[in-house]
Amino acid sequence: MRYNISSATAILERTPRILDVWLRGLPAPWLHGNEGPKTFSPFDVVGHLIDGELADWIPRLTILLEQGESRPFDPFDRFAHWERNQGRSLESLLEEFTQLRAESLRQLHSRGITEADLDRRGTHPALGSVTLRNLLATWVVHDLNHLRQISRAMAVQYSAEVGPWSAYLKILQNGG
Amino acid sequence: MRYNISSATAILERTPRILDVWLRGLPAPWLHGNEGPKTFSPFDVVGHLIDGELADWIPRLTILLEQGESRPFDPFDRFAHWERNQGRSLESLLEEFTQLRAESLRQLHSRGITEADLDRRGTHPALGSVTLRNLLATWVVHDLNHLRQISRAMAVQYSAEVGPWSAYLKILQNGG
Repeated sequence: MRYNISSATAILERTPRILDVWLRGLPAPWLHGNEGPKTFSPFDVVGHLIDGELADWIPRLTILLEQGESRPFDPFDRFAHWERNQGRSLESLLEEFTQLRAESLRQLHSRGITEADLDRRGTHPALGSVTLRNLLATWVVHDLNHLRQISRAMAVQYSAEVGPWSAYLKILQNGG
Repeated sequence: MRYNISSATAILERTPRILDVWLRGLPAPWLHGNEGPKTFSPFDVVGHLIDGELADWIPRLTILLEQGESRPFDPFDRFAHWERNQGRSLESLLEEFTQLRAESLRQLHSRGITEADLDRRGTHPALGSVTLRNLLATWVVHDLNHLRQISRAMAVQYSAEVGPWSAYLKILQNGG
């Protein structure tokens, strides 16, 4: 499937609503359970997605369109949210993410990006030369990756409880 | 985390709403893309979850509580929905699943299951002896497993589009 902004937006605009329906009001053990040290709980995922809106997608798009390959993107801190969100409620994170995502999409659409623009290039600090198409498709897959991570962080809380069924549940296998 | 009906219900009751927010109105290539032959698209997942309400969770709970280990559960056909749902709209599947899940939860709660009941045993046709706790926890993890599958079926549609970022996206790795 080729990237296009309309299809991608269909996913990106749903993510805040999915998270809201899924996480708001959920008992704390589901929200704060993770897969082990240095892994994200569902609460952490929302914080990490906020970081993406603040420091990753639109800021990198802007650098790419305005400065091309000459100016590498800033490195992205995957753990910035851990300190910043101490003591905040899930509800306030959900609301912040909803607002930031809507603003990011407004900015994306205001750029009037053409098919030709999707092949323009920037420089990732570790991965090297990337296209705008790569960046914008990654935004979508990154959302899906973290929805997947939420489902797994929750599922592993019941690893022992499912008993023999663990053999049938791919989500409980290594790397699932 | 120990299984309890209240925490489990918090997940089970959200799944139809998550699917509705995520899938309703989504462009067809997202709904019908899968990970390869004999794998489920997001559309297929909804059909499979309907099969679970009809033939798996409450029917097996009933056999276990009423006949114990003496009567094995009926085998579950993971592909029944493929033929049955040909030509149906996603919307009608979402509505059917929403109704069936609400009815399943009504039946679950009407049983007045106690902590002691959770250790009662039934017989799975392939896995052998299982507890009610195993069955009910598997219902939850099975939902999460298929939410995970939806995110992956969508993500792989952009496998090529993300370019070098595929190295960072666990959802695009084998088994992700």
